[in-house]
Amino acid sequence: MNIRTIDWKNNKVRLIDQTKLPHKLIYIDIDKIEDLWKAIKTMQVRGAPALGASAALGVYLGIKDYSGGNWKGFEAVLKKAAVYIASSRPTARNLFWGIERVCLAARNNKHEPITGIKQAILLEGRKIMQEDMAACRLIGAFGARLLKDGDTVLTICNAGILATIDYGTALGVIYTAKKQGKKIKVYSSETRPLLQGSRLTTWELDKQGISVTMIADNTAGKLLSDGQIDMVITGADRIAGNGDSVNKIGTLNLAILARYHKIPFYIAAPQSTFDLKIKSGQGIKIEIRAACEVSKILLKKDVAPVRAKVFNPAFDVTPHQLISGIISDKGIISPPYFKNIKQTFKER
Amino acid sequence: MNIRTIDWKNNKVRLIDQTKLPHKLIYIDIDKIEDLWKAIKTMQVRGAPALGASAALGVYLGIKDYSGGNWKGFEAVLKKAAVYIASSRPTARNLFWGIERVCLAARNNKHEPITGIKQAILLEGRKIMQEDMAACRLIGAFGARLLKDGDTVLTICNAGILATIDYGTALGVIYTAKKQGKKIKVYSSETRPLLQGSRLTTWELDKQGISVTMIADNTAGKLLSDGQIDMVITGADRIAGNGDSVNKIGTLNLAILARYHKIPFYIAAPQSTFDLKIKSGQGIKIEIRAACEVSKILLKKDVAPVRAKVFNPAFDVTPHQLISGIISDKGIISPPYFKNIKQTFKER
Repeated sequence: MNIRTIDWKNNKVRLIDQTKLPHKLIYIDIDKIEDLWKAIKTMQVRGAPALGASAALGVYLGIKDYSGGNWKGFEAVLKKAAVYIASSRPTARNLFWGIERVCLAARNNKHEPITGIKQAILLEGRKIMQEDMAACRLIGAFGARLLKDGDTVLTICNAGILATIDYGTALGVIYTAKKQGKKIKVYSSETRPLLQGSRLTTWELDKQGISVTMIADNTAGKLLSDGQIDMVITGADRIAGNGDSVNKIGTLNLAILARYHKIPFYIAAPQSTFDLKIKSGQGIKIEIRAACEVSKILLKKDVAPVRAKVFNPAFDVTPHQLISGIISDKGIISPPYFKNIKQTFKER
Repeated sequence: MNIRTIDWKNNKVRLIDQTKLPHKLIYIDIDKIEDLWKAIKTMQVRGAPALGASAALGVYLGIKDYSGGNWKGFEAVLKKAAVYIASSRPTARNLFWGIERVCLAARNNKHEPITGIKQAILLEGRKIMQEDMAACRLIGAFGARLLKDGDTVLTICNAGILATIDYGTALGVIYTAKKQGKKIKVYSSETRPLLQGSRLTTWELDKQGISVTMIADNTAGKLLSDGQIDMVITGADRIAGNGDSVNKIGTLNLAILARYHKIPFYIAAPQSTFDLKIKSGQGIKIEIRAACEVSKILLKKDVAPVRAKVFNPAFDVTPHQLISGIISDKGIISPPYFKNIKQTFKER
């Protein structure tokens, strides 16, 4: 089944509303920057690479109706749109990278007429989508070499089709392995509090004909200890220069559990997720989300006393020492990461 | 606030219906063995020490209406009641221990009239409750020595008042430390799938005036990595002769995360949880519970595609190497466990 998470259709951003999955596959068309901001904030669209493309197209939605004629006026509107979209969520590097890409495209075309600058921004946004589709397939090809026929992979959150344009990073590795004729089984950690593992990963793997079994996040230790897992692969939201990787809360748990059980733990992410200006995971801002995500199940029914305190970080940092390799669109990066990440992404 | 989880009142077993917490504190009176079996099965009552007392009283409910006059006929009914109650849940050692205790009391009185044997069984069940109350206070006293004023403890599931008669094992340690004037903060891991951490532990700690903060189970790694935790303490459902401890699924995760971060990890449990006949955790039957506990939140709303496969073990085994010490009612047991557990529980 072909699924396209983000598209540009009829001058609008078309997104799958991921808050409705797995019950309904609903597409929403967005042509206002405010609605795109809200789609990111409420996680109708989520996943670092998907946020990069959404944010870039969001900036276009913010400037497309500018009716003035000069660069100075346009630049002010562009900056406002960029700052606004950037305020939606703080952690994923790709979101800021997408915004920076379209802003740079605008500046590079600042001597063109305003309509030309607008076109340059839209083209850049669409190029980001095309590049993501290609990058995910490269990640898939590099990563699939690590998997043998019959392997079982454990993953958390959703680093699949629904986190990218149409293919996935961690799950892209599994899709490519499947195309190569390898039979891969997947365990999907449900990923409290927002259950992206059960709602999204289980749904999309099933649609793609991959055998998937859900577990409560608590079951990961037992599964590894029972010898059921050959590899852990997750996505990432931001990767520091030394390889420290920020990803969905619970990823650090899996990395430590995998290390204890001597099972390889891989991160899969495109170049747009790397943040070489940040030296280590310590420098990365971790989004703290609403208490009710934990204290109310699916934001509705209370599961705890109403006055309960909650600590609800959306992400954690996996120190580079715990990562066996980073599967990028430029190849698999091995330790020592500081040297090898720089080497991988140096200007060619 | 005084809370009594299990009591014997007006010739009935009085239980807090824990499936109604934290919303309502409801007591139920049970006088039929079938209702007690169902209360255990559906986890209206849960927690290893609470299961020991419930099962013992359950056997009494099963024999109290026996109207025959001879031991042979009585013994058959007794055995049937014991086997029936034993079929409710497989993992907690205490449940079987409670049944064995009342059966032994019956055999020791088999030359008495049937009314006398019945009384002996009831007395033994009530004695188990008294002993648990005392054992928990001893565990509290031994364990509280490990805690300093200002310490923060991480726990999972509920090893508190609601898992025992009225005081708790892991949480009893915290209650005793509080009585000693120490200010202890607690993080309560929510404990998917059935959320005993958020529903029960958060509720009872709050009622006892202990500062408690809920986390998704996924947040434990970050919390430990941030240096927020001084000690992890959990209960246990069954402890093998070598110290391997079976407890709520997710306990193994915490033990490995604690070890990685060099934070002490303690088990707190009374003698009735130890199963010296079993040499290691490998020999312990792990209950596999219904898929819908994971695939439906609170057994109602689907959070995953309806056909999703689920692996839902209720417990995991924490290998003894990961346990800093076992806080028992006979003192804190340190490694090497095989020798020291035997030493601790040898006939005195």
